[in-house]
Amino acid sequence: MTTPLFDRMAVIGLGLVGSSLVRIARAKGLAKTIVAADASSSVRQQAEELKLCDEVFADAAQAASGADLVVLATPVGVMGTVAADIAPHLSAGAILTDVGSVKEAVVKSVGPHMPKGVHFIPGHPIAGTEQSGPGAGFAELFDGRWCILTPLEGTDEAALAKLTEFWNSCGSQVELMEEKHHDLVLAITSHVPHLIAYNIVGTAADLEGVTQQEVIKYSAGGFRDFTRIAASDPTMWRDVFLSNKDAVLEMLGRFSEDLTALQRAIRWGDGEALHKLFTHTRDIRRGIIDAGQETDEPDFGRRHDLEDGE
Amino acid sequence: MTTPLFDRMAVIGLGLVGSSLVRIARAKGLAKTIVAADASSSVRQQAEELKLCDEVFADAAQAASGADLVVLATPVGVMGTVAADIAPHLSAGAILTDVGSVKEAVVKSVGPHMPKGVHFIPGHPIAGTEQSGPGAGFAELFDGRWCILTPLEGTDEAALAKLTEFWNSCGSQVELMEEKHHDLVLAITSHVPHLIAYNIVGTAADLEGVTQQEVIKYSAGGFRDFTRIAASDPTMWRDVFLSNKDAVLEMLGRFSEDLTALQRAIRWGDGEALHKLFTHTRDIRRGIIDAGQETDEPDFGRRHDLEDGE
Repeated sequence: MTTPLFDRMAVIGLGLVGSSLVRIARAKGLAKTIVAADASSSVRQQAEELKLCDEVFADAAQAASGADLVVLATPVGVMGTVAADIAPHLSAGAILTDVGSVKEAVVKSVGPHMPKGVHFIPGHPIAGTEQSGPGAGFAELFDGRWCILTPLEGTDEAALAKLTEFWNSCGSQVELMEEKHHDLVLAITSHVPHLIAYNIVGTAADLEGVTQQEVIKYSAGGFRDFTRIAASDPTMWRDVFLSNKDAVLEMLGRFSEDLTALQRAIRWGDGEALHKLFTHTRDIRRGIIDAGQETDEPDFGRRHDLEDGE
Repeated sequence: MTTPLFDRMAVIGLGLVGSSLVRIARAKGLAKTIVAADASSSVRQQAEELKLCDEVFADAAQAASGADLVVLATPVGVMGTVAADIAPHLSAGAILTDVGSVKEAVVKSVGPHMPKGVHFIPGHPIAGTEQSGPGAGFAELFDGRWCILTPLEGTDEAALAKLTEFWNSCGSQVELMEEKHHDLVLAITSHVPHLIAYNIVGTAADLEGVTQQEVIKYSAGGFRDFTRIAASDPTMWRDVFLSNKDAVLEMLGRFSEDLTALQRAIRWGDGEALHKLFTHTRDIRRGIIDAGQETDEPDFGRRHDLEDGE
């Protein structure tokens, strides 16, 4: 147990990330009191059943009231509204942060509501699974991952240090970044990959020459790898694409350009160009494994046993 | 141990799939003698060290000579040449099959070399990992997977039944398919997914606004899922794209069309269209898990422990 960093921590939104934060904060004793709010009654009920935290409110303002750490963990599309609701109830000296996958839009939608004396420090833990809801969270989600903070000009150093300590205690390393750059980096490392995964799963579902049953049966040929992230939360991801439009369209443009070149190489039988790319891409995976961001077990460590099947 | 189905089984090419076949055949006693051939001396040396089979030859014809089961497990681009080399040495009544990811091209390149009396039955086990070489193979690779056979008109029923029994003994269920249809199904379930994965990893490696180090660091946002299949064997995959050109270009056309529609939805802020697709795609993953072709552990069952990190 660490000495509590905060007296009252309020997490707004108890999805995968919000509920994981509550779990790790409790496990590590990072706040004396931990409360949460969620707009969905079924989520609140689940949270009560799981005994996730000290109190769960329907009203975000009630949760945030008196808190010295408030974490917005809702889809980014509603963060502005939530911020407006809770703003009058925020204590002077409180830190307000978020876990949204887009940062410039959050700065624009949340920032203007922040009262003087509240330390608004946008953030984004690079962690998640394809599952959603309070039951899907777990305390180890942030362990060994990176958390990007995008502090605004003039951010209080002590508040930033305290929030950094909080994330370190969750198991993450903190990196500081300008919000526009964050959005560009995440467009290629997260947003476009999700879009492409959603897209190919959609394409495969709507073919007339190949049945959906065939797609499912023979998915072990590679397709199934894409279905994992294409099972991610639809509302969260709709908001991401709508609020990081420019960077996503920019990166998508690059992707399509490169894909057209590959298509042309196939059409003209340019085996050398294909082989060159296919060799190059192996190095990146090696780098990711070496950086501790991926398991090095083949086939994602999927089970292959004769006894049990998969 | 089963009664041996074959007297002498010869596997040409000791990569991931060839070496896995040798392992399972030995483990299950599917052939009295198991021999192999590989053109690479380092592969042959590894195979000797691993004691994979009874004998390993440099010359495919020597391995195939006297065999009643010959399995071509080389990249599809060289199967025609190998078939021409071994044809004069094939015994009457022998079954010759292959494990290539493309079937029409193999029928065209291998078929004409087959002597009368040899049963040529093209095949494709839908199984693999991103790793290559004789050290990467394992006996359980085919367990719980599908193996597609594409018998030609007039194929001997007894030979087909025997080859089916062989694959069943390896743990796979056999499905029969026309070779053209196989190539279309695999284009969407395997070939285009690999192409897209190679492509996005290539795009990410060559950006000027985002460094390769950033791509690696923040890959847990989704990108790393793509790097697995983008680490697959370059030569094998070059050959797949060159020899399944028509089906790949057809499916790639569909994919790009759908992606352009998504791009347009993002540009025009059509959240409803995005949400609709993102909800639809969840069902397919559910179907794949229910069909036993994917693990249902979140995040591919990647380890998340506080003690060891990942």
